[in-house]
Amino acid sequence: MTGRLRVGVIGTGAMGSAHARTLAASVAGVELTAVHDLDADRAKALADEVGASAAPTPEALIAEVDAFVIASPDPTHVDLALAGVAAGRPMLCEKPLAVDADGARRVVDAEVAAGRRLVQVGFTRRYDPAFRELKAVVDAGDLGEVRIVHAVHRNATNSTSTDDATLVTGSMIHELDTLPWLLGDRLVAVRVESPVDRAFRDPQLATLRFGSGALATVEVFVNARYGYDVQTEIVGTAGTASLEPRSTVTTRRAGRAGTAVRDDFVAHFADGYRLELAAWAVAARAGTVDGPDAWDGYVANVAAAAGVRSLRSGEWEAVVPVERPALYETGR
Amino acid sequence: MTGRLRVGVIGTGAMGSAHARTLAASVAGVELTAVHDLDADRAKALADEVGASAAPTPEALIAEVDAFVIASPDPTHVDLALAGVAAGRPMLCEKPLAVDADGARRVVDAEVAAGRRLVQVGFTRRYDPAFRELKAVVDAGDLGEVRIVHAVHRNATNSTSTDDATLVTGSMIHELDTLPWLLGDRLVAVRVESPVDRAFRDPQLATLRFGSGALATVEVFVNARYGYDVQTEIVGTAGTASLEPRSTVTTRRAGRAGTAVRDDFVAHFADGYRLELAAWAVAARAGTVDGPDAWDGYVANVAAAAGVRSLRSGEWEAVVPVERPALYETGR
Amino acid sequence: MTGRLRVGVIGTGAMGSAHARTLAASVAGVELTAVHDLDADRAKALADEVGASAAPTPEALIAEVDAFVIASPDPTHVDLALAGVAAGRPMLCEKPLAVDADGARRVVDAEVAAGRRLVQVGFTRRYDPAFRELKAVVDAGDLGEVRIVHAVHRNATNSTSTDDATLVTGSMIHELDTLPWLLGDRLVAVRVESPVDRAFRDPQLATLRFGSGALATVEVFVNARYGYDVQTEIVGTAGTASLEPRSTVTTRRAGRAGTAVRDDFVAHFADGYRLELAAWAVAARAGTVDGPDAWDGYVANVAAAAGVRSLRSGEWEAVVPVERPALYETGR
Amino acid sequence: MTGRLRVGVIGTGAMGSAHARTLAASVAGVELTAVHDLDADRAKALADEVGASAAPTPEALIAEVDAFVIASPDPTHVDLALAGVAAGRPMLCEKPLAVDADGARRVVDAEVAAGRRLVQVGFTRRYDPAFRELKAVVDAGDLGEVRIVHAVHRNATNSTSTDDATLVTGSMIHELDTLPWLLGDRLVAVRVESPVDRAFRDPQLATLRFGSGALATVEVFVNARYGYDVQTEIVGTAGTASLEPRSTVTTRRAGRAGTAVRDDFVAHFADGYRLELAAWAVAARAGTVDGPDAWDGYVANVAAAAGVRSLRSGEWEAVVPVERPALYETGR
Repeated sequence: MTGRLRVGVIGTGAMGSAHARTLAASVAGVELTAVHDLDADRAKALADEVGASAAPTPEALIAEVDAFVIASPDPTHVDLALAGVAAGRPMLCEKPLAVDADGARRVVDAEVAAGRRLVQVGFTRRYDPAFRELKAVVDAGDLGEVRIVHAVHRNATNSTSTDDATLVTGSMIHELDTLPWLLGDRLVAVRVESPVDRAFRDPQLATLRFGSGALATVEVFVNARYGYDVQTEIVGTAGTASLEPRSTVTTRRAGRAGTAVRDDFVAHFADGYRLELAAWAVAARAGTVDGPDAWDGYVANVAAAAGVRSLRSGEWEAVVPVERPALYETGR
Repeated sequence: MTGRLRVGVIGTGAMGSAHARTLAASVAGVELTAVHDLDADRAKALADEVGASAAPTPEALIAEVDAFVIASPDPTHVDLALAGVAAGRPMLCEKPLAVDADGARRVVDAEVAAGRRLVQVGFTRRYDPAFRELKAVVDAGDLGEVRIVHAVHRNATNSTSTDDATLVTGSMIHELDTLPWLLGDRLVAVRVESPVDRAFRDPQLATLRFGSGALATVEVFVNARYGYDVQTEIVGTAGTASLEPRSTVTTRRAGRAGTAVRDDFVAHFADGYRLELAAWAVAARAGTVDGPDAWDGYVANVAAAAGVRSLRSGEWEAVVPVERPALYETGR
Repeated sequence: MTGRLRVGVIGTGAMGSAHARTLAASVAGVELTAVHDLDADRAKALADEVGASAAPTPEALIAEVDAFVIASPDPTHVDLALAGVAAGRPMLCEKPLAVDADGARRVVDAEVAAGRRLVQVGFTRRYDPAFRELKAVVDAGDLGEVRIVHAVHRNATNSTSTDDATLVTGSMIHELDTLPWLLGDRLVAVRVESPVDRAFRDPQLATLRFGSGALATVEVFVNARYGYDVQTEIVGTAGTASLEPRSTVTTRRAGRAGTAVRDDFVAHFADGYRLELAAWAVAARAGTVDGPDAWDGYVANVAAAAGVRSLRSGEWEAVVPVERPALYETGR
Repeated sequence: MTGRLRVGVIGTGAMGSAHARTLAASVAGVELTAVHDLDADRAKALADEVGASAAPTPEALIAEVDAFVIASPDPTHVDLALAGVAAGRPMLCEKPLAVDADGARRVVDAEVAAGRRLVQVGFTRRYDPAFRELKAVVDAGDLGEVRIVHAVHRNATNSTSTDDATLVTGSMIHELDTLPWLLGDRLVAVRVESPVDRAFRDPQLATLRFGSGALATVEVFVNARYGYDVQTEIVGTAGTASLEPRSTVTTRRAGRAGTAVRDDFVAHFADGYRLELAAWAVAARAGTVDGPDAWDGYVANVAAAAGVRSLRSGEWEAVVPVERPALYETGR
């Protein structure tokens, strides 16, 4: 296509609003023309702020744009993605692609039937400069063979999870995508345990096993109180690499030296979101996707399903390999 | 104005190329239409890369755009800024505004005569998120009254300075602008000394005195070899605040734990450059400037002139206060 | 007793030599009078260095001192401890107390029969200032209820382990003692897995479950190559606390900023060893022990046995509770 | 001598008490037999605690011991040191050796007349492991040629200084000794300035010039409120080295990640004090001193006198070189 890409955003909560503002201010070559939300007032307020119109329905929005972002509640993702595939519109769908593997599979099947990849899944960390540098260190072989990974994913307060399976399908799903990507390795089994024995089990401690044998520990804690914190350490036979905390200013006051730990994942990964949207926009103009696609979204949902089973069984649950359609073989 | 802002970039060296790429990819609402460089091949290559045309002369570029960036060699800044003022074009002029205070004064006088502020000076650190957070800590009063500042500004190798006065007028000028801004205080005297007694004195150690009495030490070292490093610690009566190094990944290998220190100020301040360009573009559409203006550029040049005198005398040199024209009273 | 405590050291390898030098130079109120080693030349050299005599046999050494340190190879610990109990001599026995739980139980039984605690076990970390500060934070309730612990224990090269069970009984045994002590909690089950499937499985990843339900991950890696590294992070419902690396000097050279990571656990825990010996000497003068006693040594051996079983089974192995003799109820 | 060294401590304030406890508990080969203080009750309490007697006068203490520590108020140091020289007793005299250069010179002259070095001056940092590692990095040539040093010396609250000259003679005197020792360079001039213009000028900012031309900035701030903090960064032509803060535990709570900064220089330099006392005791048994001697104390007092002059003049004040007596040429 020539000219600017007309884009829309469905869902104007915290994530959708952030994406809309980033598209309006920091992504070249796109024009944010429409937003939509079930809460029409909220959609209207955001539309006015960013100079877009508020579409009355998702269908109306899809009809009037070249490409769109899905940032509405998780259970709506699959139907919106299917609608986008039917309309031939490139999409950036927030993670998770679906709340279960079957839903994600329907999106994959629809793309295969259409013969096109149109859905990019919002695994933002693949665009985060720090995670990319970490991957570069692994890829360069500086660490030797990777043996163990330690990952931590904490939120100050649980804002979205309604049951503890959601910690796996909504939060841990980031690590279920990021760690195989970082290691270039396939996830073969997941085990999820918890130190608390109650209806809502938080924190959760997962162990992941990869095709190479490498093991990962993943702590997810959505009520960690002190702030938002994402840590990753990769341990290889020649050394280790870990992400630094993202502080910018150290203060020394009243007997303490330290930095702020905020509770805002949008700010924490602001660079990642911006770079993700920019790369998506470039790909969308070409009618395709960049980075994590529907297949990656499906694979993460399959792994999350194993995690949810393990949360109940307490045992290793296999991540059964599935055959990748030819559509998803290219561009990797 | 309505529609997109047509912008051009004069000077396609490291800084100008970086600005052009950022404008093309990461700033909304602008269209990079032209670049120019004395080296026509270099200009053409960049123009092709970013989808702009290569203007044959600065004058031609200025004529065809709505606003432009001056990133050509320092001695050309004044004439280009004067041309921009004459043409009524908003500009972002890389620091320093001029190589001496007289040159900067001519730009100020031209703006006063024109009755408009059109020149924004590229004191990028005012847009850097870390420096902004540091300023927020000072402004909030968390540190009590500021007494002392320790600043360090190191480059791995000297790429641009031809004599040691240039360390003051080209490198230290960042601190001469940033520290008064951080403290909300006026610089009253400068003293510059060096541990080496030779023609090209590097490193240099400056002491700054502010209106409140506060003192700052500023080390500038353009052949520090190990990398690019900018540090600032502010010491107040209730505590201190300092900038953290910008590492993202820590590796532990072969008996060492640590992070990379790169020699790339464009990468180091990438966020600042992008936010600076975005804010400038918004202001330029409104026909004005954002943040540091020609007056700030002139004041920094006056301070740098005192620094150069001190480099010769070894004594405190006063930064003589000058009366600020009414044009520069607004918007602060 | 009055006068100085005459002490001896059995075993003059790296650990025994370090203890001997510390006793000779940095512990008040003791006189290091004798050392012994199977390697008589090595014993003689150390004896000359520290101003002691070289005893021809362990029995001769025990006969001539008031108290002694056992730093000979692990399989000799039990017999030497039994000899010490028989002779009524206070001892500091390097960890582990025994290579298996049965051996440790024999020492406990001998003390119970004698009606005295004479054996202190060298779980040095309980004396390390950093671990003590970490425990103080936990005990103060600053972290709320502890949910998860992440521990890492790496050596550059394996110097002592002959089979991979020794990683549990010789290295991980530190964490098997330290973590229950830090948390004030009882260990109820251990699971040990490894990313490598070969005869000598290294690294190993253990999961520990405590009486409160809290979970701990423990990575032991004796061929980590880059250096000696001990990390502990405690995660509670109100915050986290972790140990800082022990660097003292940061250098910035050649594009890297960082600190040395040495491969010397004696230097790493030098303060802990000195404080341990000083506290032991004070207790020994009073005819008793300080801190970890034979019961603690036995409990750690029981936990290690569960770990070794799990290394074979891959399953959770219970740490079966055993009744604590009355002798070990006092002084806790 | 054979047998244990009988030592006494004059002055039982914070410093003297700490030294007495360290001598009693952590230094081998010495017997702390006597303490003295003008406050007889305080002396008696400490004597009882450490198992020594309380001497009625300094003279009585000197008469009954083999060697002694001077930790009484600064103005008493010279007379006590002269008494020690007259009695032929090795001494460890807390810094400063004297409150002015003339007093220190009298001690030097007395030693020269006696033909023996008996006075070691308590420049503890020379024994601090971190400062020693920093010196090792400099000595190894890792930094190339040293050009600039940045030093910071902060106390939470001023506990001892009665006028602002005391910041130079009592606090900054540490840096006046440490920096020449670290650099192996001679101090040639001192300049002391302050951001506050009042009777008690605190903080103070000193600039030091060395024989090689190297410059150092030294901030002394005795009312920094947040805690005790000592920082040193050495900048050379090939890199930099700096001391790490001495935290051991990082906590993350309530939106902050950080470490404690305490206000206790005795705890901060506990290792240094212990190693200093141990080295002193070994030397004292041999009738001499270890490390910084009366000449070093005098040289520091000469530098401090230049600093006090500069605090009044605001100008560079030369540290006039003086000829070193032959007595002080050996053992360096």
